Amino acid sequence: MCEGRTSPRTTCVASDNDKEIIFPMRILVLGGDGYLGWPTALHLSAHGHDIGIIDSFARRNYDYEMGANSLVPIRQMQRRVATWKEVSGHTIQPFIGDLTDSEFLELSLRDFGPEAVVHFAEQRSAPYSMIDRKHAVYTQVNNVVGTLNLLYAIKDIDPSIHLVKLGTMGEYGAPNIDIEEGFIEITHKGRTDVLPYPKQPNSFYHLSKVHDSHNIQFACRIWGLRSTDLNQGIVYGQRTPETDLHPDLSTRFDYDGVFGTVLNRFAVQAAVGYPLTVYGKGGQTRAMLDIRDTLACVELACTNAAEPGEFRVFNQFTESFSVKDLAERVARVSPFEVEIDSIPNPRVESEDHYYNAVTTKLPSLGLKPHLLSDDTVLHLVETAREHKDRVNFEAIRPTVNWRSTHSDVSIAGGAVGS
Amino acid sequence: MCEGRTSPRTTCVASDNDKEIIFPMRILVLGGDGYLGWPTALHLSAHGHDIGIIDSFARRNYDYEMGANSLVPIRQMQRRVATWKEVSGHTIQPFIGDLTDSEFLELSLRDFGPEAVVHFAEQRSAPYSMIDRKHAVYTQVNNVVGTLNLLYAIKDIDPSIHLVKLGTMGEYGAPNIDIEEGFIEITHKGRTDVLPYPKQPNSFYHLSKVHDSHNIQFACRIWGLRSTDLNQGIVYGQRTPETDLHPDLSTRFDYDGVFGTVLNRFAVQAAVGYPLTVYGKGGQTRAMLDIRDTLACVELACTNAAEPGEFRVFNQFTESFSVKDLAERVARVSPFEVEIDSIPNPRVESEDHYYNAVTTKLPSLGLKPHLLSDDTVLHLVETAREHKDRVNFEAIRPTVNWRSTHSDVSIAGGAVGS
Repeated sequence: MCEGRTSPRTTCVASDNDKEIIFPMRILVLGGDGYLGWPTALHLSAHGHDIGIIDSFARRNYDYEMGANSLVPIRQMQRRVATWKEVSGHTIQPFIGDLTDSEFLELSLRDFGPEAVVHFAEQRSAPYSMIDRKHAVYTQVNNVVGTLNLLYAIKDIDPSIHLVKLGTMGEYGAPNIDIEEGFIEITHKGRTDVLPYPKQPNSFYHLSKVHDSHNIQFACRIWGLRSTDLNQGIVYGQRTPETDLHPDLSTRFDYDGVFGTVLNRFAVQAAVGYPLTVYGKGGQTRAMLDIRDTLACVELACTNAAEPGEFRVFNQFTESFSVKDLAERVARVSPFEVEIDSIPNPRVESEDHYYNAVTTKLPSLGLKPHLLSDDTVLHLVETAREHKDRVNFEAIRPTVNWRSTHSDVSIAGGAVGS
Repeated sequence: MCEGRTSPRTTCVASDNDKEIIFPMRILVLGGDGYLGWPTALHLSAHGHDIGIIDSFARRNYDYEMGANSLVPIRQMQRRVATWKEVSGHTIQPFIGDLTDSEFLELSLRDFGPEAVVHFAEQRSAPYSMIDRKHAVYTQVNNVVGTLNLLYAIKDIDPSIHLVKLGTMGEYGAPNIDIEEGFIEITHKGRTDVLPYPKQPNSFYHLSKVHDSHNIQFACRIWGLRSTDLNQGIVYGQRTPETDLHPDLSTRFDYDGVFGTVLNRFAVQAAVGYPLTVYGKGGQTRAMLDIRDTLACVELACTNAAEPGEFRVFNQFTESFSVKDLAERVARVSPFEVEIDSIPNPRVESEDHYYNAVTTKLPSLGLKPHLLSDDTVLHLVETAREHKDRVNFEAIRPTVNWRSTHSDVSIAGGAVGS
């Protein structure tokens, strides 16, 4: 089981986790206080890995800017880490700072000495990036510069560090051919090459991820860095085996028009008796996955590192759904009366298109997906119901329109782009 | 002759220029004080267009940073503009400021009211972008943010403005299939789509242009902007009919290892008796063009605007050469004894590869290329010889190595990356 592990610090030990042999690694989770970063850190820590997290609390600040909040209360990072220590006995080492501060980033990397870095630390909302010019510029600068700083830090400090980078299936857009995993063999005028899969992203946020992918691929080529780009689908779910251990360990549950992803948002709308807001015809088909599969995929990527110089791309999703399908599913499963409301699509996107994306690499590494079950949907609605007194109804509807995004919109009291 | 012109401000008039009918337009040249921006502004002005230029003198500042200079003396912008007025009777309106200052950019755009914007205003040196982390970050932020600000300004002020953006053939890298103009038809698993041509750029600078292309394409799609992305080859030459009218009108002639493009650099090396520095085997093949063809191509793009919502890509070059071919050409034509020196390649690139790029759109609009002649090479060498007392020999050799680019290199006295 030790074959193919290339990091010199990795040793084979037996853990008591499901009686599996695991290989404890030192893993630094960037954005480790966020919706997915935090449960990922817990999951990896529970599995015996030594975990550090970096966060600047940018995500918590967006809440203040938007007048939004996590439906489920979340604790401050220090409290989360302390409770995890009490509950599990495991230590998570926090580093507070921002990736755009290269000096901080280098010090943290030197101090922690990771074998793998999992990079969630980006502005990740498409609507947020489309609010106005400033938010578009912020999103691209924040994401691109943070990742550039990280590439340089890895190169200078320890080029054997495996960069596991969160990308998005949205990088591909919706081409009229099958979506492959990062690369595609093209035969053209009698010659053949395997080239990066053409990208057609649909927001300044998605574009920032495309920029990152190109930068990372280049760094792997010229410096021999190793990286896995996880082109992740839309994640749903809010509970994991670890977050369920104690209320202090909960992760975010976003339902607002800016940061709420589609199924989570529908669940909250159903729980509070607000119509499910389907954008346009709802025929937009998207690749999706359960939050627990995100954690499993990230761990699989970490424990099966890319080779030096390798830039590999995994399409990280388990199923595809149209937005309309999801709304109907929530309506059917919900114990409450649910209305579905088609509203004008604030995005510029096709509402009826071919969509067939390939995902073979993660299953081949052993991913056993949690497919979307009625139970999961019900769980989401029930969790939302439990906290329905915290809902800010003002924040639910989409407030950012792709067409009318202006140069500079001042945001006050959550009146984003309105 | 007025068919297909969509700008409401354009009128048909006869000019006295070669007795052709031309359509005077208001064109704003961003980076209009630079190597190509300045002669482009002159060329368009000579052809009867109303020209404004924006520049922040970033390019002149890089000279101070690098301890380098233009071999041919260049005048300050105010003097250039005044001499042009004296020589030609035409006014060029200058705006001094930077595209990353969105307020300045918006004011300039409103004030000048262009029908087309020609965007040269980016950091354009691959080696400069590879000096260290700070220069990589600077290059990407400067180029990407400047272009984002421009897209928003056009959208808000006048979406009918045609954005003519300078890209580079280097965006494509050197794939093993023919390079098409921006898009490629791909048939895959029985389905077909026309998708953006896959990009494999080879420096953080080239990457910044790829990022720009993706951002511009998106802006055309969602906002209906119109843009022509000129994927330009490596430009050689330093004299144009307009710059020849008066020494004050000269444009830059760069020969240093950071900003000097290959043929210009070889000409200077030949003129001063310095060996021609060929990187590695010299089999790197690159698309190239004469500076006079750059001016013609930009004008063709301006006077044949893209349609609203259209993002079109022109491959802007006329011939392809290997670096070794060019060195041998210079050695053969030069009146002086010339040595060719193969030095270790500071870049990470293939020195022996397939290269066949397509260019049909500019010829179809009427481009009549100046193919590389011995006369042109001789002209370059003679111009260099005339100013050889200005050569800083320290600046000639490549000082930036793709492999050993560090996080932070302090630059003093031109000792870049050494």
